Amino acid sequence: MIFSNTEFYFTDPKNISENFIKIYNEEANHIVKVMRHSIDDNIYVTDGKGNVYDSRIIGIEKKAISLKIFKKFNQKNHFENISFFIPILKSSNRFEFALEKCVELGITNFKIYPAEKSQTRGIKLDRWTKILISAMKQSLHSFQPKIEFVELDKLNFQSQKNWIFEQNSKIGFNTFLSNNKINITDKINLFFGPESGLVQKDIDKISDPVFLKLNSNRLRSETAIITAASILSSIN
Amino acid sequence: MIFSNTEFYFTDPKNISENFIKIYNEEANHIVKVMRHSIDDNIYVTDGKGNVYDSRIIGIEKKAISLKIFKKFNQKNHFENISFFIPILKSSNRFEFALEKCVELGITNFKIYPAEKSQTRGIKLDRWTKILISAMKQSLHSFQPKIEFVELDKLNFQSQKNWIFEQNSKIGFNTFLSNNKINITDKINLFFGPESGLVQKDIDKISDPVFLKLNSNRLRSETAIITAASILSSIN
Repeated sequence: MIFSNTEFYFTDPKNISENFIKIYNEEANHIVKVMRHSIDDNIYVTDGKGNVYDSRIIGIEKKAISLKIFKKFNQKNHFENISFFIPILKSSNRFEFALEKCVELGITNFKIYPAEKSQTRGIKLDRWTKILISAMKQSLHSFQPKIEFVELDKLNFQSQKNWIFEQNSKIGFNTFLSNNKINITDKINLFFGPESGLVQKDIDKISDPVFLKLNSNRLRSETAIITAASILSSIN
Repeated sequence: MIFSNTEFYFTDPKNISENFIKIYNEEANHIVKVMRHSIDDNIYVTDGKGNVYDSRIIGIEKKAISLKIFKKFNQKNHFENISFFIPILKSSNRFEFALEKCVELGITNFKIYPAEKSQTRGIKLDRWTKILISAMKQSLHSFQPKIEFVELDKLNFQSQKNWIFEQNSKIGFNTFLSNNKINITDKINLFFGPESGLVQKDIDKISDPVFLKLNSNRLRSETAIITAASILSSIN
């Protein structure tokens, strides 16, 4: 089922039973006060696990809405095994914009890591989680994007596909994708550098990386991230 | 010549003679006060017409810098005949972000048009010109992007390639580009809709359009614009 011209709302899976849904607090408020929905309206609710419920509002309380489920849909996450490794960028605006665009383009796994030359301050997982949920709903996706802070040397990248984006690489990402069939079960990690790039010490933490370039331009970090997501989403 | 790890500065072609360059006002100030360049430093200056000059600072006055040219390079504009038709978006932040990303990705022609359902206020050509020049320099391009306000029904789109991006189209942009060899001399117009989409009255103003989709996601307007530029730049 392809959705369009509608909105999605989100509630935690624990608030969904076989026939009924509860939505609480901010989201409930948004539905009633901002979107002006009322009793007997039908809306789509997602649990962030790939399920979308066509459901009808049957009760409005002060900080909660009750809904009856009419139909359940499932979406497929084509990018379940793809992770974007992103350092904290200097501009949080640009960083958050990149996150939002990636979610619209279907990316669902974000690993924020400290690179040798990246910012070390400004980890705002709660704020980013909100941005990701909002982008998920807005773009009518039903998989809640995951974001976590990781350190590269504590992870095991063996027998995974590790792609590092590097302007001076000879291999174009598009050409590489055409020549290497990607299997949906392959675990793929895409690594992006900070503004001043990755250094050897960063690269040494990644097993058997393939170096790829996105195009022949010098791109800002957030542009490289969005471009990679654009290309991935266009071949899917 | 591919430039990297450097900066470009911009001056109007009229300030460049055979052997010397003058840079005035804001840009001169930026070079001396912000970037802390001084006499005898070598910097790259572009005229925004595809030329880049390796030149040395030989004089610093109050609101001007004089430079001697050592070497001249030429860049090629692969996207000279490609125009992005963009309506004014509700969020000027998002609109300006899309402009900046497009320039980084090599797009050089922007036509801002009023769609039936787009904003009609907020045309800031002076501000946008500054953003475009800044993005050109930052991404080490030497073609000054052009931006103008146009009305679709006053233009002649005949014998040009007109591509409209529309989520419900059956043809994917990536597949379309693989199956249709694009000639660098082809005049190509890419049309993007506003938040609430294009209506028939908009579409009727465009001769023989091809409807294309970027991927299977619902994208915000600015994401569609950046995605199209990403895909174009990756096949170039």
